[in-house]
Amino acid sequence: MKNIKLTIEYDGTRYRGWQRLADSENTIQGKIEKVLSIMTGEVIEIIGSGRTDAGAHALGQVANFKTNSNISEKDIKDYCNQYLPEDIVIKNVGKVDERFHARYNATSKKYLYRVWNSKAPTAFHRKYTYHVPQELDLKAMKRAVGLLVGKHDFRAFSSVKSKKKSTEREVYSIEILELGEEINFIIHGNGFLYNMVRIIVGTLLEIGEGKRKVESISEIFKEGERAKAGITVPAQGLYLYEVYY
Amino acid sequence: MKNIKLTIEYDGTRYRGWQRLADSENTIQGKIEKVLSIMTGEVIEIIGSGRTDAGAHALGQVANFKTNSNISEKDIKDYCNQYLPEDIVIKNVGKVDERFHARYNATSKKYLYRVWNSKAPTAFHRKYTYHVPQELDLKAMKRAVGLLVGKHDFRAFSSVKSKKKSTEREVYSIEILELGEEINFIIHGNGFLYNMVRIIVGTLLEIGEGKRKVESISEIFKEGERAKAGITVPAQGLYLYEVYY
Repeated sequence: MKNIKLTIEYDGTRYRGWQRLADSENTIQGKIEKVLSIMTGEVIEIIGSGRTDAGAHALGQVANFKTNSNISEKDIKDYCNQYLPEDIVIKNVGKVDERFHARYNATSKKYLYRVWNSKAPTAFHRKYTYHVPQELDLKAMKRAVGLLVGKHDFRAFSSVKSKKKSTEREVYSIEILELGEEINFIIHGNGFLYNMVRIIVGTLLEIGEGKRKVESISEIFKEGERAKAGITVPAQGLYLYEVYY
Repeated sequence: MKNIKLTIEYDGTRYRGWQRLADSENTIQGKIEKVLSIMTGEVIEIIGSGRTDAGAHALGQVANFKTNSNISEKDIKDYCNQYLPEDIVIKNVGKVDERFHARYNATSKKYLYRVWNSKAPTAFHRKYTYHVPQELDLKAMKRAVGLLVGKHDFRAFSSVKSKKKSTEREVYSIEILELGEEINFIIHGNGFLYNMVRIIVGTLLEIGEGKRKVESISEIFKEGERAKAGITVPAQGLYLYEVYY
């Protein structure tokens, strides 16, 4: 039995998200499992590092699966890239230790969020960025980053309903990059609650637009209520950038 | 009567090209004329700087139209960007001299052609680049550029059927830029024959792949036959970049 690790890039525009659904095969996991099952003649189930939302993208999603087949890594990659839809690409295939688990072994993750910050919309990036026409106070946003980074209870920055599990996470860094008319947020942390990246970016944008004060970050943490934080920005700007093990 | 100049960006993926067709409104010109006609209450015909192919894009297409309406430039821009499909964006609107003609007055044009040069395909740029998995000899391609630039009879680099008109054109420059896994060709000239940019890029790529010698450029010019030049690369990588007046 071999354990195979995949690194995957996808344009999530036309999918219902990463996770296979019973009533629809229009998911990224479903598409990949189907191709791998036909290739190996086995029923393949892949384990992703985590879900991504409908319409969200990935530059470096990681998954693993077990197989008895003797197909080489190179042949797996070539076969997948030949038969997968064009908006899903296997970037890398490697043999890993049989105990490797793409979700449990992930130690941290990095996400990218792309904002198109120009008065005029864009003809090209509309499915890949979130359009914010207002001028943004980047200095204020960067000061707010200083309050967000670190180990906190991020429950207010999550749409999660369950209260059973711990909502403490550590955000290692939030970089804000200005690239012409685009602003990129790169967020690295040891784990992320449901919608956490999208709510952090929504909150930072409200600070940048002057709708909210930098200091409100501390209040959000203190009160721990979802309603105190900013909007959930759309999935189309979100990319799972890298998974660390 | 006012004469209005538009600068237009579009993602041509889902269109049949720039030029309005009698049997279909799925053209960029058709979409813009429809919105302008509703806005002004007049039958508006716009004059583009030139056609673009089905699936080709523009970052700076220019067009003009005449109107008796008194709508301000800002209102024209806002109205168009509100009612046009999201993949067509009016970047700029300006009043120009009544004699300005977007096609006849264009003195030169710049095109961009984007190649995705990586063994692995791309999940994101497939409708916006042409995938060339082979390694390319950029030095040879740049030497070939030296033979292409200048005033030549470009008839061999054209799919045009008519032999009535002059096929002499001047190419001012061809820049080849390496941007990570992408190679960009930026071609500036006083005018372009039908498919000329796509055949020039196709010929340069064949040189880069070692399928053709640098010196073949001189032979193509001498023989003047379409069959001697390289392939016509796909429209999806082509962008009308800027029109000069």
